[in-house]
Amino acid sequence: MALNGGVPKIAGVELRSRLIMGTGGASNLDILERAIKESGTELVTVALRRVDTAATMNGGLLDMLERCGVRVLPNTAGCYTAREAVKVAHLAREAFETPWVKLEVIGDERTLLPDGVELLRAAEELVADGFQVLPYTTDDPVLARRLADAGCAGVMPAGSPIGSGLGLSNPHHIQLIRQSVDLPVILDAGIGTASDAALAMELGCDAVMAASAITRAADPVRMAAAIRHAIEAGRLAARAGRIPRRFHALASTPDEGRPDL
Amino acid sequence: MALNGGVPKIAGVELRSRLIMGTGGASNLDILERAIKESGTELVTVALRRVDTAATMNGGLLDMLERCGVRVLPNTAGCYTAREAVKVAHLAREAFETPWVKLEVIGDERTLLPDGVELLRAAEELVADGFQVLPYTTDDPVLARRLADAGCAGVMPAGSPIGSGLGLSNPHHIQLIRQSVDLPVILDAGIGTASDAALAMELGCDAVMAASAITRAADPVRMAAAIRHAIEAGRLAARAGRIPRRFHALASTPDEGRPDL
Amino acid sequence: MALNGGVPKIAGVELRSRLIMGTGGASNLDILERAIKESGTELVTVALRRVDTAATMNGGLLDMLERCGVRVLPNTAGCYTAREAVKVAHLAREAFETPWVKLEVIGDERTLLPDGVELLRAAEELVADGFQVLPYTTDDPVLARRLADAGCAGVMPAGSPIGSGLGLSNPHHIQLIRQSVDLPVILDAGIGTASDAALAMELGCDAVMAASAITRAADPVRMAAAIRHAIEAGRLAARAGRIPRRFHALASTPDEGRPDL
Amino acid sequence: MALNGGVPKIAGVELRSRLIMGTGGASNLDILERAIKESGTELVTVALRRVDTAATMNGGLLDMLERCGVRVLPNTAGCYTAREAVKVAHLAREAFETPWVKLEVIGDERTLLPDGVELLRAAEELVADGFQVLPYTTDDPVLARRLADAGCAGVMPAGSPIGSGLGLSNPHHIQLIRQSVDLPVILDAGIGTASDAALAMELGCDAVMAASAITRAADPVRMAAAIRHAIEAGRLAARAGRIPRRFHALASTPDEGRPDL
Repeated sequence: MALNGGVPKIAGVELRSRLIMGTGGASNLDILERAIKESGTELVTVALRRVDTAATMNGGLLDMLERCGVRVLPNTAGCYTAREAVKVAHLAREAFETPWVKLEVIGDERTLLPDGVELLRAAEELVADGFQVLPYTTDDPVLARRLADAGCAGVMPAGSPIGSGLGLSNPHHIQLIRQSVDLPVILDAGIGTASDAALAMELGCDAVMAASAITRAADPVRMAAAIRHAIEAGRLAARAGRIPRRFHALASTPDEGRPDL
Repeated sequence: MALNGGVPKIAGVELRSRLIMGTGGASNLDILERAIKESGTELVTVALRRVDTAATMNGGLLDMLERCGVRVLPNTAGCYTAREAVKVAHLAREAFETPWVKLEVIGDERTLLPDGVELLRAAEELVADGFQVLPYTTDDPVLARRLADAGCAGVMPAGSPIGSGLGLSNPHHIQLIRQSVDLPVILDAGIGTASDAALAMELGCDAVMAASAITRAADPVRMAAAIRHAIEAGRLAARAGRIPRRFHALASTPDEGRPDL
Repeated sequence: MALNGGVPKIAGVELRSRLIMGTGGASNLDILERAIKESGTELVTVALRRVDTAATMNGGLLDMLERCGVRVLPNTAGCYTAREAVKVAHLAREAFETPWVKLEVIGDERTLLPDGVELLRAAEELVADGFQVLPYTTDDPVLARRLADAGCAGVMPAGSPIGSGLGLSNPHHIQLIRQSVDLPVILDAGIGTASDAALAMELGCDAVMAASAITRAADPVRMAAAIRHAIEAGRLAARAGRIPRRFHALASTPDEGRPDL
Repeated sequence: MALNGGVPKIAGVELRSRLIMGTGGASNLDILERAIKESGTELVTVALRRVDTAATMNGGLLDMLERCGVRVLPNTAGCYTAREAVKVAHLAREAFETPWVKLEVIGDERTLLPDGVELLRAAEELVADGFQVLPYTTDDPVLARRLADAGCAGVMPAGSPIGSGLGLSNPHHIQLIRQSVDLPVILDAGIGTASDAALAMELGCDAVMAASAITRAADPVRMAAAIRHAIEAGRLAARAGRIPRRFHALASTPDEGRPDL
């Protein structure tokens, strides 16, 4: 993925949209379809297990995604060990016929934050097995660099816990991650609303992942449009070179030419 | 102006764009023109004195604004007393043939924050004189309500000092202002980048004013596009009903249907 | 009051403690007495009306304050106009035999934030009447300067709404007030816990006012001690010259002398 | 260490002070001695290599620390691998005759943030070797729990990068760590001034480590006193039960008994 400019590219594939959507939390397959279309996303992440139960969502998630023309990014949601995640990744590769995987190894039920040690272990193994690995990681720049060194295709740091809507609880660390790796940085988890997504892009992320923020909003379709605009806003702002922060004011209107009263 | 939905209306005039642009800080009339066009704004604020010197900006600011098809919102920038601001407003009404005025009564050279007491006095007088008054005010919800009671057409609270780029230094007060008046709330001053504008709209503002954030950005045209998207993002997000903030995580992917490993 | 150093002085009176306590919110006179003693305060603010009902608090507030050896600072809580506040101030001067008054002119029932216009009017009148006026004001540096120009003995900006516990919702404005006046700045309203009080002092305040933070804490006596320590901590830190903020790290342990492994 | 109450205890040893001091950054041994005494600390961390060069600080660091009557906590500052850190820990145990070690395994020169993978490995090995291990860790609650499971005597999460003075850049994660382990939590790294230390204690930390914040302050002795008070303030506040945060105000002075004007 080009870094915050041009057409993004992950693992050699060009994507025009910088929004990756998750399907979890959706209460209705029809609304989810409209939200996906409205979001403009080209990449939707799907948990292996979710697919199995998709039949209950009258119609089938995969059929819908195919209809939308989006690429599927299988994830290993719900795995708590490297061993488990590696197994699920292999099953997903067969099921979805893609070497791409959003690698999740959860460390804690309450926070759903990743377990960095297990994550790195799983990433190393999957890279060796030929996967294009996109790890859901902490906001730790050292771990991000180790994942990059291990051959991952990008890193997906959490802004805050999954579904918390707390946005980016540590923008400083997202900036440090941006400096520590030359890979695509995709803000994953914690997005609550549009301005969070814009901020992530302004801090140097290349893309943003959103699931609950859209699927659980009161109006998912409208929120999908909001986040689409926010990502474009943040991407442009990051490239436009913002003004510096000043403690005092700076007049935009100088005094010369003032009418004589 | 409809409150954060539908087509905005100020003083009876419908505006499709919720971005009001300032011209101060622009170093080049040609770039300013392209930024104005890119921003999609329909309303540009101009200081009376600035117009007088516009001739030095090879071509003339007013001609350019007319070419862009935007409405001019004269302001009283640089006035430090009610008396001075009222005079400038009258001159501006003659010069621009509009009863609209962005009323600025500055209280302090260092912060360029408004003087609430003088501001209210000037607003009362101008309303009585038939102006459509849009006061640049503090983020004080009590003062906002008094300006509303005085018959202003909207209120324009500062997010932070003019040109500071500090964004919204007190989002809580912007929300309190939103609750305290039934008028259009236009975030004025302090915007540094796109996410600030998105946040302002999410907090319930009806529009956002930006001058330095655009005119002094490294690339004003691109920043104009960024802020245009951000305002649309924030407007949609405010109407979409964001998810609540939670201390802990909420799984987007439930455990049922997990494959047996 | 000496500015954040030496022995504080308000209106010519030296005070060793930089904590001003309020009595509102106390559910029990005995606990309030112990909290006042633990806090080390020498100045306690009392609403005129509260005194009248103190009899219901078995024993009498004023007797207790006299027993504690603290000075009473009458306030005009609950007044919504300059006229009303001036009247209450006069009644308080007679009742408490002190020219000091904590001037409150509330602008809004929901936020209990001051009405700056009425406040300034009342302050001017009371200063002319020989009062030592300590106005509860907004965090607006321009209004603070106008109150100083009007002859107030100090300014008491709100950190956030009374009883909200939100702390300092706009530290930047507290710093701007510190720069705008040469009077004692006393952070009033909004303190939720100890670190808020420390921060206020670090930003340059000379003293901190706390009522609900202490009286409504689960353990008011312990919170009184906490805030006493916090104010001392912040006062010392403000004078000690803190290290600058850096984006990256700065090793505290240099590499020289590293053992050869 | 008792959790934020009573007399703190680390590895079976009772400590009355909850401030751990570092010696790095000190420019003058005499001032350092006075700062240590003023701080009230009973535990001072020392890098092995620093001791070797202490002779250059006219008089010797260790002699001074003995004179102050404080316990030495050797650290492994400057180690970048588990192997290196384990070696230094062993040398330190011999040199200082203590099984306690502040375990640092740095992952990045620019941020000096820990490398979680190497840190856990070193911790496991040192625990097996009979050390009382206090790891300098990230603010990741999952890694904290793994370090606790590995048998560490406490965890020392970074508030922000060493020497950055950024304070607690993610208070939410410090709270999550507090919930994830039953061990002493000692806020390490990033403290810039007193209110940061108070906040750390309010969030549930049992102690705070400060080096640069004190040693590099303009007046280290005064800052030592400031941070001592701040830690006591935060400890008391955490136990006093703060008031909840509210969006609107809560009058501390009720309306009944209002004088009739």
